[in-house]
Amino acid sequence: MTTTELLPLRDLQACCAPITREVISEENAVSVAKAMKALADPARLRLLSMVAAHDDGEACVCDLTEPLGLSQPTVSHHLKILVGGGYLTRSKRGTWAYYRIVPGSLDAVASFLAGV
Amino acid sequence: MTTTELLPLRDLQACCAPITREVISEENAVSVAKAMKALADPARLRLLSMVAAHDDGEACVCDLTEPLGLSQPTVSHHLKILVGGGYLTRSKRGTWAYYRIVPGSLDAVASFLAGV
Repeated sequence: MTTTELLPLRDLQACCAPITREVISEENAVSVAKAMKALADPARLRLLSMVAAHDDGEACVCDLTEPLGLSQPTVSHHLKILVGGGYLTRSKRGTWAYYRIVPGSLDAVASFLAGV
Repeated sequence: MTTTELLPLRDLQACCAPITREVISEENAVSVAKAMKALADPARLRLLSMVAAHDDGEACVCDLTEPLGLSQPTVSHHLKILVGGGYLTRSKRGTWAYYRIVPGSLDAVASFLAGV
């Protein structure tokens, strides 16, 4: 497992007009591709949808491992990429880490793709 | 260079509620991740934006190679992935192949991410 180097999503929002409106620069295309690679994984898409569906939009890592059917280190690896990519926040309370979707983070990618 | 196996984007539109509305199944997450991987590459993002910006929304492969600064076989490889992913159509006229963005294809991914 490798950890992808990621830029904050605010860079995506700041850097780039929607893809169909303006030719994207090489540098910005690298940033956006990195942000999209953090999403383009089945386990990470499932994690995001599970966190979003959880009570109050917050899920403990302890709630995610079993339904995902992956080992805890693998789940932690994927969560780390989603946090690093700016899609999830992580807060430690007691024994466990809790995750929430960062408001607007998925919309930033959607806006880039569709100009919405 | 490896060619990613891809599913048509209509499967994405048909299969999946927005990521924050419903927990995505493992099978559907695999399909969506494949569709997103086809986009999550700097050269492919640049190609899409270049095709969209071209006169009448159509670009010849001969117009794309030089501004992209990549070899023609590499550009053809990326264009093939975008066609296979359902993002571009390809039509051969005379010597050259011409590419257009498939209407709604980027919106399908955007809708999945943002529920728009």
